[in-house]
Amino acid sequence: MSHHWFDDSIPGPDTAVLAAAHERQAQLTKPPGSLGRLEQIGATLAAMQNTQQPQLDRAWITVFAADHGVTAEGISAFPQVVTAEMVRNFARGGAAISVLAQEWNARLEVVNVGTVQPLEDLPGVLDARIAAGTANFVYEPAMSIEQLYEALEVGRAAAERASIGGARLFIGGEMGIGNTTSATAIACSLLGLPAAELAGSGTGLDTAGITHKALTIERALARHHSDRPLTALRQLGGFEIAALTGAYLRCAQVGLPVLVDGFITTAAALVAVRHQPQLAAWLFYAHRSAEQGHRRLLDALKAQPLLDLEMRLGEGSGAAVAMPILRAAAALHARMATFTEAGVSQV
Amino acid sequence: MSHHWFDDSIPGPDTAVLAAAHERQAQLTKPPGSLGRLEQIGATLAAMQNTQQPQLDRAWITVFAADHGVTAEGISAFPQVVTAEMVRNFARGGAAISVLAQEWNARLEVVNVGTVQPLEDLPGVLDARIAAGTANFVYEPAMSIEQLYEALEVGRAAAERASIGGARLFIGGEMGIGNTTSATAIACSLLGLPAAELAGSGTGLDTAGITHKALTIERALARHHSDRPLTALRQLGGFEIAALTGAYLRCAQVGLPVLVDGFITTAAALVAVRHQPQLAAWLFYAHRSAEQGHRRLLDALKAQPLLDLEMRLGEGSGAAVAMPILRAAAALHARMATFTEAGVSQV
Repeated sequence: MSHHWFDDSIPGPDTAVLAAAHERQAQLTKPPGSLGRLEQIGATLAAMQNTQQPQLDRAWITVFAADHGVTAEGISAFPQVVTAEMVRNFARGGAAISVLAQEWNARLEVVNVGTVQPLEDLPGVLDARIAAGTANFVYEPAMSIEQLYEALEVGRAAAERASIGGARLFIGGEMGIGNTTSATAIACSLLGLPAAELAGSGTGLDTAGITHKALTIERALARHHSDRPLTALRQLGGFEIAALTGAYLRCAQVGLPVLVDGFITTAAALVAVRHQPQLAAWLFYAHRSAEQGHRRLLDALKAQPLLDLEMRLGEGSGAAVAMPILRAAAALHARMATFTEAGVSQV
Repeated sequence: MSHHWFDDSIPGPDTAVLAAAHERQAQLTKPPGSLGRLEQIGATLAAMQNTQQPQLDRAWITVFAADHGVTAEGISAFPQVVTAEMVRNFARGGAAISVLAQEWNARLEVVNVGTVQPLEDLPGVLDARIAAGTANFVYEPAMSIEQLYEALEVGRAAAERASIGGARLFIGGEMGIGNTTSATAIACSLLGLPAAELAGSGTGLDTAGITHKALTIERALARHHSDRPLTALRQLGGFEIAALTGAYLRCAQVGLPVLVDGFITTAAALVAVRHQPQLAAWLFYAHRSAEQGHRRLLDALKAQPLLDLEMRLGEGSGAAVAMPILRAAAALHARMATFTEAGVSQV
């Protein structure tokens, strides 16, 4: 087996800086522990950025968009054309993630990894279209090996653009009608769980719709499944999920912290962490989605999300809402006075 | 009984604007309900601000500081002098709330409602010192009626400064060694609960310390308690808690949304809501504090906090961390495109 970039090792955050960061937290003018989880987050960001003055001022958001052959099975509440329509909405600034990116002055780019129809030139949208959507994974692998590598590479390139662009945090988002079905299938494959335990309403299925979705996934898993992460990813698809996987792996390789969004992105994180467990140290989790399977995925990853606001939109929107919490933790770690500096009495 | 400003009526947010806001939420380019709690928050902010373009760009933070006679009973892990030392730390920008206010460009002011020693002139600190701390409420009422009115008035003035200053959101913070004891006593008095159920570690008491604190509160409650909110407030004190109560009531009277912080401020909210139940419609709750009694207070107020990050610092810090969530909800409500505007297909 040849060596690929996504097998390159992932360094851990600096342990000496982390120890110094915990010492600093104990010296800041507050009762020990009173900033709760923000203390650990601040110290972790310090170690990731190799400084006691961590900053999260520049966040980079890449939304990967792609279509899914499995939509032919009627597993989504929305028609497939919405993927492309929403890409246009991202470009025009009308989508949730567009509004949030603007609100926080975050850089937003959209990458078309494989809409069914080619798209016209759109501002802020990169064309990296691999194919006219994935194949219907009920009948065949969602993508070929070459397509898998291409999609991972699309993610790698986004992570590198973010890193070179001076980003302090990477947020991956996704758009793809049908992609909760793909993400659920991948998670079932890797976790060895029946589809009924993970399948949720996605963009808005009713109970009958969820049952149909779960049965569709079971048909696919009867044909092909694997506990090898990249194999499951190839079989059950999602060009955008593969791109997210590649982006997460590359972010960690280059030392860029990642804020994982919701259900789809957590499925990508699961693939990536199973591929390289050291990745886990570079991931923060934004929120617990209302999508039924998300809790199980988070548990499998031992992830502690920051928010639980019953969101289930995707696009990276949950991460964009949670991002200021990381920014607050970094600012507090960097700029609070110590007891000595402030002349405040200690216990 | 004479009529006071704090008895003046509180208007409700506009119900017609609220209905239109819910209609707008259903038209925005997202699956219905997929923004979770942000949808209700966005609609509520629209109704509060009487516009479908709500904004939360200008937040105002007032931290009220005061000392507590009950510290003589040894109920805090920190010495009383820390109240004044921390006021200086706020002024110099080294405290958690200073850092967060700076990070979000929020206006921060500190009001000295009653430190034990007078303070020198400090930038950004208003002197509204009522007395050298409250009386020890184990032996006598924490404050006189005149002092209570004076403290409520200090809060009223802060709310009016915020409103006149163009603030879109009011955050009250507090600093006062001993004030979890005062807040716990007030909450026990109003909710009819034993101190053991609400008393927590405050700035860092151990189990023995918490037991001593609960017993101290029980001694006080044996002497005086009331289910009348302003009476309990007067008896069990906290000039800063009374100022918060006044500020919350005035904010609602002038139509300024409030983001309640943690345990102490929720106790003030409990007093204020019991005094005028219509206030409840103007309050958001930032977080569930790690302070043991907070959950019970939130339940009593039917409050759904935004965050649960195990914070327990006070100062308004939890509200400052949660504030961007409200800001995100307002921005999404105001600026997302509708399905028609974006040409996106609906279900």
